[in-house]
Formats: sequence, C-alpha cells, structure tokens
Amino acid sequence: MLGARGGWQALRRCASLPRAQRAVRLRVREALRAQEPAGGVKVQGWVRSVRSQKEVLFLHINDGSSLENLQVVADPSLENRDLTFGSAVEVQGKLVKSPHRMQDMELKAETIHVVGSCDTWSFPLKMKERHPLEYIRQFPHLRCRSNTLSSLLRIRSEATAAIHSFFQDNGYVHIHTPIITSNDCEGAGELFQIETSHEARESAEKTHFFNVPAFLTVSGQLHLEVMAGAFTHVFTFGPTFRAENSQSRRHLAEFYMVEAELSFTESLQDIMQVMEDLFKTATNTVLSKCPHDVGLFHKYIAPAQKTKDRLEQMLKNKFVTISYNEAVEILKQASQTFTFKPEWGCDLRTEHEKYLVKHCGEVPVFVINYPYNLKPFYMRDNEDEPQHTVAAVDLLVPGIGELCGGSLREERLPFLESRLQRYLDLRKFGSVPHGGFGMGFERYLQCILGADNIKDVIPFPRFSHSCLL
Amino acid sequence: MLGARGGWQALRRCASLPRAQRAVRLRVREALRAQEPAGGVKVQGWVRSVRSQKEVLFLHINDGSSLENLQVVADPSLENRDLTFGSAVEVQGKLVKSPHRMQDMELKAETIHVVGSCDTWSFPLKMKERHPLEYIRQFPHLRCRSNTLSSLLRIRSEATAAIHSFFQDNGYVHIHTPIITSNDCEGAGELFQIETSHEARESAEKTHFFNVPAFLTVSGQLHLEVMAGAFTHVFTFGPTFRAENSQSRRHLAEFYMVEAELSFTESLQDIMQVMEDLFKTATNTVLSKCPHDVGLFHKYIAPAQKTKDRLEQMLKNKFVTISYNEAVEILKQASQTFTFKPEWGCDLRTEHEKYLVKHCGEVPVFVINYPYNLKPFYMRDNEDEPQHTVAAVDLLVPGIGELCGGSLREERLPFLESRLQRYLDLRKFGSVPHGGFGMGFERYLQCILGADNIKDVIPFPRFSHSCLL
Repeated sequence: MLGARGGWQALRRCASLPRAQRAVRLRVREALRAQEPAGGVKVQGWVRSVRSQKEVLFLHINDGSSLENLQVVADPSLENRDLTFGSAVEVQGKLVKSPHRMQDMELKAETIHVVGSCDTWSFPLKMKERHPLEYIRQFPHLRCRSNTLSSLLRIRSEATAAIHSFFQDNGYVHIHTPIITSNDCEGAGELFQIETSHEARESAEKTHFFNVPAFLTVSGQLHLEVMAGAFTHVFTFGPTFRAENSQSRRHLAEFYMVEAELSFTESLQDIMQVMEDLFKTATNTVLSKCPHDVGLFHKYIAPAQKTKDRLEQMLKNKFVTISYNEAVEILKQASQTFTFKPEWGCDLRTEHEKYLVKHCGEVPVFVINYPYNLKPFYMRDNEDEPQHTVAAVDLLVPGIGELCGGSLREERLPFLESRLQRYLDLRKFGSVPHGGFGMGFERYLQCILGADNIKDVIPFPRFSHSCLL
Repeated sequence: MLGARGGWQALRRCASLPRAQRAVRLRVREALRAQEPAGGVKVQGWVRSVRSQKEVLFLHINDGSSLENLQVVADPSLENRDLTFGSAVEVQGKLVKSPHRMQDMELKAETIHVVGSCDTWSFPLKMKERHPLEYIRQFPHLRCRSNTLSSLLRIRSEATAAIHSFFQDNGYVHIHTPIITSNDCEGAGELFQIETSHEARESAEKTHFFNVPAFLTVSGQLHLEVMAGAFTHVFTFGPTFRAENSQSRRHLAEFYMVEAELSFTESLQDIMQVMEDLFKTATNTVLSKCPHDVGLFHKYIAPAQKTKDRLEQMLKNKFVTISYNEAVEILKQASQTFTFKPEWGCDLRTEHEKYLVKHCGEVPVFVINYPYNLKPFYMRDNEDEPQHTVAAVDLLVPGIGELCGGSLREERLPFLESRLQRYLDLRKFGSVPHGGFGMGFERYLQCILGADNIKDVIPFPRFSHSCLL
C-alpha cells in the first residue's frame, strides 16, 4: 500500500544529518518495517493504548497504514491529561530496535504533541475492547477506527486494485458504464427511480429531467456489450442498485459489481476460465498484500467456518463444473429435506446451492446450461432437445452460494428479432459470438473473509429504512 | 494494456509446431508488435477497409486493442460479398514482415471467415470518413467503433488506472463512498432525489424506502473525512451528480470525480502538492501508454489549440500560485472588458479564470485564500484581517478553467459548533488538521486532450432531456 515514494528515501538522506534538522514524517507501516535505527523521525496517528508505569510511558499509535500499531516508549514526564485512547498525536524521536518479540522497531519519544484530544467518556469505542460488529455498525462515522473495519477497508482497497490490475494486465478496456439509465436491463427486481427534487415535490403530469423515466442501474451488461463490439474485451466495476425491501444479512440497496464482456467466445468455457482466473489472481494478491488484515478475519471473525483452510483448497484446486441437469439429479437424490423441492425447470435456491457446494467437496462449483424458460432473453439458445437450455453459468462458492452469473449472449439476429432496436443493431453490424459475467464484489469479500453480514464489508451500507450519513 | 499473459508466450511455443496445430489467437496490438514472423496465427476483429486489386486483396482489421489496424494480405479468391466495412472476421494465416513503411508486420491470410456481416447501407459509420463528433454522438451504441471515440475510451481507461496507481503507490486507501446519501454535502446545485418506482407512482404522504429523503451524491468529501480520521490518506474515484438544467458543452448530469483527503496537513501547500503530482504523474503515464491515441486528439481534434505544446509546458514547469487578492488585482488591471466586473468578494467566473491562466503564461495556476463568505462552512478560517479569508484553493488550467477545488478543513470544534452532529463528532474524538480536494475527471480528459465538448469524453453522457441507452 505504501510505495516507492514513501518516506524511506527521505529518511536515508536524513539519517546522517544533524538532529536539529526538520524531522522526517513516517507512516506507522514504514516505521515498523525500517531496517535501521534512525533519529529525527516524526510519526502521527491515533492513540490505541496508554500504559503508564513508574519508569516509563508506553503508547501504541495507529495511523491506518497497517493493522499493527507502533509502540512508543517515553519518559513519564511526557504524559499529559489529553493523552488518552482515541486522541490524535504527533510523536518525534528516535526509531530503535525493539527488545520485544512482537515488533522489530519502536519509537523512543523526544516530544509528544496531542494534536486533537478525545473525550473517552463519550467516544463509543473503548480501549482494548473487541466490540461486536452489530455494535459498531451504529456508528458509520467512527467504526473505521476499530481494528475489524479498518482491516476490512484496507482489504477492500487492495481487492479493488487487484481486480482492476487483473483486467488491465489481460488487455481489457475499463468502461465507466452509466449509473442513471432509461432502461431496466433484465427486469431484475425493484428499481430506484430518479427525479429532480423539484419534480419529487410536484405530483401529477410531470415532465422528466431526462424527458423519459430514469432509473439507477441494476447492471452494466448492455453497455458493456456495446463496448465489447469495439474493444473485444471490456470490464466495469461500479455500484449497482436494487430497491428490494429486505433487512437480510445478504442484501444491500447499493452494492458493487465487477462485470466483464468478451467478444469472439468459442464456448462457455471461455467465460468460466476468466471467472476462475479472476477469483484466484485477485485473492492471491489480497493474501500477499495484507496477510495480517485477512488473518484477523480468519482468526476472530469467522473461526468456526474454517475459512482459511477452505480458501486454500479453493485456490489450489480446479473449480468443479456440473450441468443444471446433473445438479437437479444430485439434489433429488439428497438425503436432506429442502424447503423448496428440487425439480427440473425451477431456479436453484440458496439451500440448493449450499448443498451442491458441499456435495462437491466445499469447492467452487460452476453450474451450466439452465432451462431456457428460467433465463432472460439475451442468453444464447443451446437449441438442444428434449430439455431446452441456454448457455448460462452460475459460480457457486462455499459459505455464500452464487458469486458470479454469466452466459454466452445470443449473437444471432433472428433469435432476437422483435426486441429492443438498439440491441438488435449490435447484431446487425458485425455481430460476433460473445459472453460475459458479473461478480458481486461484497459477496466476494464475504467469501474470502468469512464475513457473515454484507453490511460489514461495505464502507457505508444502504438498505431499506437505513441511509445513515 | 496487454500484459504478460497475452498470446506471445503461447505464440513462441507454437511457432515451432507443425501448421496443422490449432492456431494461436493474437490481439491486433500483439500482432503489430511481434518481433518475428510466425505461422498458425488467428486474428479476430472488425473490417476497417477493403481494397480489392487484381492480384491481391487488402483488408484492415481492428479489434479495439490499438488505434492502428492490422493489414491483411490475401489472395483475391478469398473475397466474398459479406466481407465489407464493419463486418466481423476471423483471419488465419502467417504473420510476416511488411514491405510497407507504415507497419512492421502484416498477416498473410490462409482463410478468412466472416463471423458477422454488416449491412453497410444502414450502418451509420462509413468507410474512411472522418465523422464529426456531433454526428456520432447520435449513436451511443455504435460511436465506440469510430477512431476518435475508441481512442478516447482507451485513454480514459488508462487515465483511470493511472489515477488509481498514483494514490495506491503513495499509501492512500481507496474508499467506495456511497452514491445514495441522505445529506446534501454543500448544497451544491440541484439534487436528484431517489424513490422506488412504486413510490414514484403514488402521490401524497409517502413513506420513503430509506425512511428519509435520499439523493444522489454531489461529492464524497464528508465520507472521505470520516475515513481520513482512520487511514490518514484516502481517496475515492466515482460518479457524482448534478440536476442542473444545462445543455452546455461544459456540464453533465452524471460525471466522475477524483477526491482525496489528507490528515495531519501542515498547510494548504500539502494539498496543492498532491494535486500537482497527481496531474503530472497521471498525464505522463497516459502519454507513455497510449501515445497514438493521444496523438489523434492533438492532431485532429484540437489542432488549433496547440494542446500538445501547451501540455508539454504544463508538465515541465512548476504550477504557479497566486492569492485570490492578487487575482482580483490582476483582473482589475486587465485591459480586457469582462461581462462580470471583477470585484473583491465575488466568485471568479470562467472568463476570469481563463484570463488569469493566460496572464500567468498558459500554465496551471493555483488561486488560494478565498473570501470567507464565498465558501462553505467546512473550510478552515484563516482568521486574517482586514479581509477575512479561508484556506481554499482552486486549480485553474488552460482551456478549461477550474480543474480541481480543495481546502484545509476546519478541524477546530468551536468553529463548527451548531452544525451537523456527526460532523462535530469527527472533531471531538482525536481531531487533526486535514484537507482535501476534488478533480473533475472529464475536465481532466478535456484538458489533456483539448476536447471541446464534455459529452465526447464520457462513454454514455447524461444531461437534461437526454438519457440515451
């Protein structure tokens, strides 16, 4: 997260200078990784603990650059009443080798300046307490200062970067697909409609800002298909919206989707290969970039689920592929009783998805070739008999169920006739076999971290009856 | 754009294999950059030109991986009536050194397969025509297949990646600030309100989906300030919205903003340095990653404006800084007559901004320390006399006017009392001096490319009366 332009070059230059020189500002992460002791160092951050002994004052400072705190060792004379848990401080001094096993470096303070005090009585986070996720969710403006949420947000940032890199490295053009749209991609769930606040106040016979009713996007697929007809490989990574009235731990009104579209596909396998590569590449990057942050989740947030071992299995083995037909057979032969009876022609429910994943050995499972009547118009007709299917694929993962959904798109004009004119145009002027998929980014984070509630893997959750901040 | 995982490794393996083997799929960009001739190559894309001579058939193929086309040389017997401008083709053959000066490599075709035909009569783009931007704007689903828009979208993709990298390399955490929000950051212009389509149909006495009225965000600043209090350095890069009823070439209803927030700032200079570094680093990356695409803009789209020379000057020289007081003096002494008379205490208009940039030698200009009464409540009071100012900064650039706006934020609780409770909380619990800025991404693209109309630098423009696709 901290690059070549960090403070280290400056520090090396400075280490040999006389002390009176201006101190070099270091992030906590840089200080912890320093190879050599150095004087004239300045670290800024928030106090995570204060321990005052007779001979020495210990502080732990965190500035969000890492999960680990920097230990500050000071003379007790530097203590002052504003130096409390949560206060913001600037410490100047000498970076020295630490005698403690837990850290390589510590800061021997020469001065401690309290930049901003913190009323610990009214501050909802308490020193050394492991607050439940439900509790800190009430404080959208302060929960990022807890260990769990700050780890989560660093992981989210690294995962975002890793996903962008994956696509850029593989020759995909990134497209900002629009948020406001005049069509409703696939009739997927309830939509949010947009009006100017002026329109919203009026009632009958309105003229719309965009002349037509406008909605928040539910998917960038149509816009990506446009672009795949020019760039061959494209992706988008942005917010999508559902107005579903749900308080469940699986749904949000605003969430992030990674979507890709590929022209000149030869089979569904092309799409599935990208899904698998994306998952494995991004996850390996996250694991190597923030092992401590991921470790916190695997150790404290999802220990019973054995997320760590399961994740290693997922990364090591090839994902499994079964057809929808096979899936229904497996479910029918299951000893388990389902709330919804499995039957050919019916959609798979979460209980079914979880069973299939378990049946296949707790690894990710591609289910392919769904019934024609279950899926939207744009999916490619397999023209098979007796059971009519389309070239659709869902990726099911342990603990979550559906993580990605994709399909080959119907590129043949006659199959699409009587549909949207612009969608048809794309098939008229140099149409090519293509396909794509979407991956729910929050579900991805839940999957690799074992986080149970989707509200804990997004900075500011929006759901029915709640739009805090 | 095309990385190490591209077809080249495969090609090397394959070049020595017998011809009967499966052909290796190459992107046009990879084929053009090949170092060695190779057989058994397959290229897929869209036909940009067909020239049939007695002895030989020439095609130009483009697949969106580069501005340049790949020349295909074939025996006239391979021609067929579907092989027209705009059709999608798959060509297999041998990659050979080209005798032409314009390209290193060309493809000697063994087979040409028309994957999707194109009715050139109804296709709105025509072979070898340079369509005006106004014309192609009518076809949001096809304009990406013109040279100009495909160059623009590749540049946009690279600029997006460069901006993400800049911040990641400098230790910033990326935050997805919310799109739907219950507050209106700074009362900036007209807002879009959100309702479920169900609510929109009803009239009186509604209950809101989120319990409170909800809007599309105009800025992620407040949410970034929350996060800067935990991570020190944070950024966001996402869509923002204004419901301004404008048809101008400067405004969109949906546009992208890059925003950053920095804790422990020592002066406005900290913020300005980041703006300047961001602009220069991102622009240098774009120039080195897609020189041909940028070249097309500088040569054909904005030649009169000498954007290329101006850009070189901008990258070479330190940005200029003047105070608002100085700016007003310069404007008062100008020989030019302004529509709006310059006066201390009034906001700078676009005509003023352009004059200031010109006056300073057509380089980017920081204007700092604006009147207290002109700026929103969260900007830091300079407590100066007799002219009361705040620590605000605008970055003005040639051809555009304001590109970035930022400020130190007021971190002192007493200065903010009687404001939003949550905003105050941030000042109560370890408050630190901080500041931040926003940069309009479309304006940035207009600036470096010399593109006149903002609608041409975004994939799917949304503005009043228009929400196509």
